[in-house]
Amino acid sequence: MTVSLLEQLIDALRVLPGVGQKSAQRMAYHLLERQRDGGRRLADALAESMERIGHCKRCRDFSETELCPTCASSARDAQLLCAVETPADRLAIEQATGFRGLYFVLQGRLSPLDGIGPRELGLDLLAQRLEEGEVRELIVATNPTVEGEATAHYLAQLARARGVQPSRLAHGLPLGGELEYVDRGTLSHAFGSRVEIRE
Amino acid sequence: MTVSLLEQLIDALRVLPGVGQKSAQRMAYHLLERQRDGGRRLADALAESMERIGHCKRCRDFSETELCPTCASSARDAQLLCAVETPADRLAIEQATGFRGLYFVLQGRLSPLDGIGPRELGLDLLAQRLEEGEVRELIVATNPTVEGEATAHYLAQLARARGVQPSRLAHGLPLGGELEYVDRGTLSHAFGSRVEIRE
Repeated sequence: MTVSLLEQLIDALRVLPGVGQKSAQRMAYHLLERQRDGGRRLADALAESMERIGHCKRCRDFSETELCPTCASSARDAQLLCAVETPADRLAIEQATGFRGLYFVLQGRLSPLDGIGPRELGLDLLAQRLEEGEVRELIVATNPTVEGEATAHYLAQLARARGVQPSRLAHGLPLGGELEYVDRGTLSHAFGSRVEIRE
Repeated sequence: MTVSLLEQLIDALRVLPGVGQKSAQRMAYHLLERQRDGGRRLADALAESMERIGHCKRCRDFSETELCPTCASSARDAQLLCAVETPADRLAIEQATGFRGLYFVLQGRLSPLDGIGPRELGLDLLAQRLEEGEVRELIVATNPTVEGEATAHYLAQLARARGVQPSRLAHGLPLGGELEYVDRGTLSHAFGSRVEIRE
């Protein structure tokens, strides 16, 4: 039995994260009923992105050019380098903070059991960069998970061995959160790391 | 400032129902990181579907051929015609029931305020079909909403005037539901329409 185009479309939509059979059906019908032009634009953007988006050779972030716009910019402070796990983390920091330094995207975290070691994270590239001497501070912004912390520890050693000061993001209570609902680990850490209130 | 391909992709993904900026970002990164082939397949399926999927000239459902496979099939019972609001409703009935008749997809419901009248729902096509004399029963499977009920009423009159018996789906308690959590309207209807328990 041949599979109809509509069934092929529904099946293809399931490649998207968090999209199951029902959502895929709803998406397909929505596009066909109300968004044919949007569907065509999406097809073009997808086809072009899958072909042309590669990795920046300097920071390993996604980029359609050999050097991403951030790495190519002369307006960024090359003395500050921020290491993140994923491009999404990089984007989050870029959007939330006024950070004007450069990034290094690990594209993962150390996870020996999954076969992800220093080589897979491009740490040779990072080490080489730290040896160039321009970077003064390596801001390690890996996730506060077990693997993220292990990666942070490794990166800090890597930096120190090359005379670069490592730092990491502060842990504590999230802003606007309620103490009552903060998890115990965070609360305990925030309590232990309390800071003096200055006049 | 030029918009990067990645930003174009994220923007294009927002055409999907229920997908905002954050989900679109997650989808784009997921495809780029782990599903390039899936992304390419999706691009192809989308491009082809948006171009080639039209409407069946007999039942108005989506179809890539002039007559959809169901309408073209000689194995279906042409005496039973089931009118539904959307292709998704048609699919739900086809998957849930053993219905072997044919369908008529309104592609909407009567809604004079939105400018949706009998013409927009293809009711001239439906009337013509009922006049052909082959259909004996018109199963009206519009949604149990105010507009759906109004549409059902209209379709029932249309059928009766052409000697076709209209019927509609039963209302009552959903199977497996708990009485306590059923909405008042449904419970009241189910109570009033109680049926005798036969031996």
